[in-house]
Amino acid sequence: MNVPPRLLMGPGPITVDPRVLQAMSNQLVGQFDPWMTDAMTEVMGLYRQVFKTANEQTFLVDGTSRAGIEAALVSLLEPGDRVLVPVFGRFGHLLVEIAQRCGAQVHTIEVPWGEVFTPEAIADAVAAVEPRLVAVVQGDTSTTMCQPLEEVGAIARAHGALVYCDATASLGGNPFETDAWGIDVVTAGLQKCLGGPSGSAPITLGPAAVEVVEARKHVEAGLRPIPGEADGDTDSGTVIASNYLDLAQIIDYWGPRRLNHHTEATSMLYAARECARLLVEEGIDQAVARHRRHGEAMLAGVRGLGLEVFGDVAHKMSNVVAVHIPEAVNGDRVRAGLLDDFGIEIGTSFGPLHGKVWRIGTMGYNARTDAVLTTLAALEQVLRAEGAEVTAGGGVGAAKEVYAS
Amino acid sequence: MNVPPRLLMGPGPITVDPRVLQAMSNQLVGQFDPWMTDAMTEVMGLYRQVFKTANEQTFLVDGTSRAGIEAALVSLLEPGDRVLVPVFGRFGHLLVEIAQRCGAQVHTIEVPWGEVFTPEAIADAVAAVEPRLVAVVQGDTSTTMCQPLEEVGAIARAHGALVYCDATASLGGNPFETDAWGIDVVTAGLQKCLGGPSGSAPITLGPAAVEVVEARKHVEAGLRPIPGEADGDTDSGTVIASNYLDLAQIIDYWGPRRLNHHTEATSMLYAARECARLLVEEGIDQAVARHRRHGEAMLAGVRGLGLEVFGDVAHKMSNVVAVHIPEAVNGDRVRAGLLDDFGIEIGTSFGPLHGKVWRIGTMGYNARTDAVLTTLAALEQVLRAEGAEVTAGGGVGAAKEVYAS
Repeated sequence: MNVPPRLLMGPGPITVDPRVLQAMSNQLVGQFDPWMTDAMTEVMGLYRQVFKTANEQTFLVDGTSRAGIEAALVSLLEPGDRVLVPVFGRFGHLLVEIAQRCGAQVHTIEVPWGEVFTPEAIADAVAAVEPRLVAVVQGDTSTTMCQPLEEVGAIARAHGALVYCDATASLGGNPFETDAWGIDVVTAGLQKCLGGPSGSAPITLGPAAVEVVEARKHVEAGLRPIPGEADGDTDSGTVIASNYLDLAQIIDYWGPRRLNHHTEATSMLYAARECARLLVEEGIDQAVARHRRHGEAMLAGVRGLGLEVFGDVAHKMSNVVAVHIPEAVNGDRVRAGLLDDFGIEIGTSFGPLHGKVWRIGTMGYNARTDAVLTTLAALEQVLRAEGAEVTAGGGVGAAKEVYAS
Repeated sequence: MNVPPRLLMGPGPITVDPRVLQAMSNQLVGQFDPWMTDAMTEVMGLYRQVFKTANEQTFLVDGTSRAGIEAALVSLLEPGDRVLVPVFGRFGHLLVEIAQRCGAQVHTIEVPWGEVFTPEAIADAVAAVEPRLVAVVQGDTSTTMCQPLEEVGAIARAHGALVYCDATASLGGNPFETDAWGIDVVTAGLQKCLGGPSGSAPITLGPAAVEVVEARKHVEAGLRPIPGEADGDTDSGTVIASNYLDLAQIIDYWGPRRLNHHTEATSMLYAARECARLLVEEGIDQAVARHRRHGEAMLAGVRGLGLEVFGDVAHKMSNVVAVHIPEAVNGDRVRAGLLDDFGIEIGTSFGPLHGKVWRIGTMGYNARTDAVLTTLAALEQVLRAEGAEVTAGGGVGAAKEVYAS
């Protein structure tokens, strides 16, 4: 394989920490090898620290972050359940779509892309809808907005609702407090601030959510002593519509019962373990501070180049910034110039923002000074070559001022 | 990480080919980098060779082999559809369970574990049930049986049914002819005869299956120019119950439209690519012959030790053998002795065979002479130490006779 060298400064996936690649290059052990089950237990403990939770049920779903989202929603929601989704970007729409496919009755509130909700707006909607579940994204990379969630747990609990949060793009780079904020279920992915590759979805479930899920547990027919016939297992409640993403079964696989489900994706588990280990070693709060620092440098840098930032900057995620593509240039040509001449990738966006903004990330392994300065230096060159007016040295200079402060 | 060295001689996952681990250690490129999209296209071509098909729609599902199974069934089946599942082991029961969760009307025929179906039995059931889909496992590792499938395509087509086959445990190690046998959809995994880790599910769909799937395509709301509102896309048919495993959306992601869906698990794609590349380099038929040779050696070897083989040996998969655990010994202690003293893993089984047989694999990277002989030598020592009557040198000797022939 001859993979071209890239500096991935888009909204993710980003360049993987080389230590994670090293971890993935380890040989396999068997699925129920004591070393493997110990490693699974260790992963549960590491992700409790990452999610800032005491939740026993903290493990990995074997798929990309989207698999984690669907596992949460399909296991929590029964057909007809009312769900409230505050939508502020593409990934809010994804929650709506997945919840609808679960047969839920989905209610939404929306703000224009580039804004977030006030706690009052969410509280009003919860009171009006009386949902069983509030499903909300923390950081929606499509708009770069970071929804404040400190109060959402209390708001939901006051109305008997659970809260699910998709923290894929934000976890590890922005403050997140599963227990302190009262969030019942959180899912993530490795390919953003955790510095790993896509393909494993860490998840945590609090006791109330576990109760909902376990009440729907059905043991796989082929695992029973007499296949297809009932045994000691309860097997009550509405069957979860997915087998692969059935959290009740996955809990039995990760738990002391070790009941066979899928064959754990061991190499991805090695990756997920190393991502969490590095984050815990650095300190979660320190990692969040690092993302804030490099995010501020990139923000100052793009402004220093004369670019205009998209959206409500006060509520921007620390790990990604969206900038308006200047009228004078062709956005795709600039991205191609960065990639072809400098090996640097930045992103475009989706839906209403497609072709209108670039998204530049500073996350995971690439929340680093050299990555930020190199990107700004290259962007200046490409913008100039494409005919945009740019302040010479303005990007790197402004970022360096942030670093010096 | 300090992973213990293991020789994985169970029913899978097995020891990964070191070249696959090397491929996985490559750094990422961006999701829509021209190098990445070229690599995806290359993977499609490689798996066409592995599946022996001309099917355009041949790609990867991002999850374990079970994710591939569910993607096939949830995308093909609508609630109320009649499905016929010939069940001859645990993984037949899994097809039943997943199809039921899709809301299908599932009909089964069964043979005792250790047997397979005659084509006539399948033909009679298809005629009686008139299903929309016949869903069948090729190699069910729970029993080690390999279901003959040469005629199933013609049988189904005569009744207007499609055929789905789960070839996870058999592909690459037993003959499989997607097009020649008229199988509409096939899924697999890397962790058996393909010599890779679990976590990526190759899939191929023929034109008739693609038609069914595409008739249910709905573009994700957040990707539309005006989110949530219809645009040029057809968006007709019954919505597929899963978003993550929606093959219509995944086809649009792998195809020329490159419409964003999940974030491809790039490291697993590197692994899947290398698995297929190695297999194509060796030659699919040569790989099948290699599995047959080492499978025969292991079969002769366990018999040479005095062990009794489970099931209909004439229909055994080439890559795994099940042996009755002798009365005199404790099966779990033997497995623990092999693991602790020799670093060798063999498996037990599920359901009615749990604790009654061991399963010994010879597949992928471990379909090798040294792996077979080492396992037989160690098994002899452990059996003797546990009080079983074994023929001294009988296992290795019988295997060597096979190799010499």
